[in-house]
Amino acid sequence: MHDQTVRDTLRDFVAERDWQQFHTPENLAKSISIESAELLECFQWGDADLESARDELADVLTYCFLLADRLKLDPETIVLAKLETTQSKYPVEKARGRSTKYDRL
Amino acid sequence: MHDQTVRDTLRDFVAERDWQQFHTPENLAKSISIESAELLECFQWGDADLESARDELADVLTYCFLLADRLKLDPETIVLAKLETTQSKYPVEKARGRSTKYDRL
Amino acid sequence: MHDQTVRDTLRDFVAERDWQQFHTPENLAKSISIESAELLECFQWGDADLESARDELADVLTYCFLLADRLKLDPETIVLAKLETTQSKYPVEKARGRSTKYDRL
Amino acid sequence: MHDQTVRDTLRDFVAERDWQQFHTPENLAKSISIESAELLECFQWGDADLESARDELADVLTYCFLLADRLKLDPETIVLAKLETTQSKYPVEKARGRSTKYDRL
Repeated sequence: MHDQTVRDTLRDFVAERDWQQFHTPENLAKSISIESAELLECFQWGDADLESARDELADVLTYCFLLADRLKLDPETIVLAKLETTQSKYPVEKARGRSTKYDRL
Repeated sequence: MHDQTVRDTLRDFVAERDWQQFHTPENLAKSISIESAELLECFQWGDADLESARDELADVLTYCFLLADRLKLDPETIVLAKLETTQSKYPVEKARGRSTKYDRL
Repeated sequence: MHDQTVRDTLRDFVAERDWQQFHTPENLAKSISIESAELLECFQWGDADLESARDELADVLTYCFLLADRLKLDPETIVLAKLETTQSKYPVEKARGRSTKYDRL
Repeated sequence: MHDQTVRDTLRDFVAERDWQQFHTPENLAKSISIESAELLECFQWGDADLESARDELADVLTYCFLLADRLKLDPETIVLAKLETTQSKYPVEKARGRSTKYDRL
């Protein structure tokens, strides 16, 4: 699977630089927030810098994959598992066409 | 590929609820920041709630996958492309064992 | 009061540049998140760059003051009002020495 | 001055609960990011929940004031000092009516 390769490529990148020591779950969680804000900056004033957005999204994803690996989780598996919860919180008949949060639906 | 399935599952989830209208790149970027902060909250006071972290990481990833799809990007491809840039910014010999930012290395 | 002066100084700064048009509540809220992440970056790897932290904290506060002004709110008044709510959510006898969230106390 | 009172009120609130131990600069920086995202959530889907925004802004400001106090900084003083830097980065004649970042002006 392609996933395997990305995970291994990231592992090699980190190991070569001896950066595992910095990649505690907490530091990775901070990094995800930091990179997410850089992504948000591409939309700060209502304009959209989609070129930069691609790079910043890549940074967010990279730290997400690193954190997933650190917590021994597979990114796609947890997304699909969470989706099931979300589906039951937002049943189609109630949620269709509405952005209302589930606790107010 | 597995990716394909996740992307399609997310697409169906969104389409069934008619939520594409809310999923502008900007709104998705905001959502990624919001969910990242919920992930960070699992580490707010130096403790670590790893059970919750898994769920919040799944939420960040979900919005990342949705934004990637909206921008017609493949998550793994952009991660690998960005990694090449990062590799040249952080050459092994300079970066090993150091968390210093590239512009100060 | 000192506050008055800061608020007016910020108003002048914005008006001279004709930036009111960009300072919608939503754009200011995004800006607060973006600057908060730059503040967080001072602590990204467990180290602490307190010199930079001062500047980034100033940026977060600036956008907070601008948003407060835009919403016709006084920063100190809303802080004190919110503190009363927080005090009742975290009664001294229950919360002392604990970082537990109120709904689990 | 009013500021003095808010600072002291916050200090008392924290001391009564013995929460200084949790309020390291890093934990406060995380908290500012977390609360900023809750503020952003009031604008997540392009709508605006201004009632909630007031409360969330108060939370961001509270943690900002606590961090300022922890770093022995006066909020208004650092805002005014930073504004001087920003003024020279964004001279009126160049920046008027534009949201462009200073390095591209």
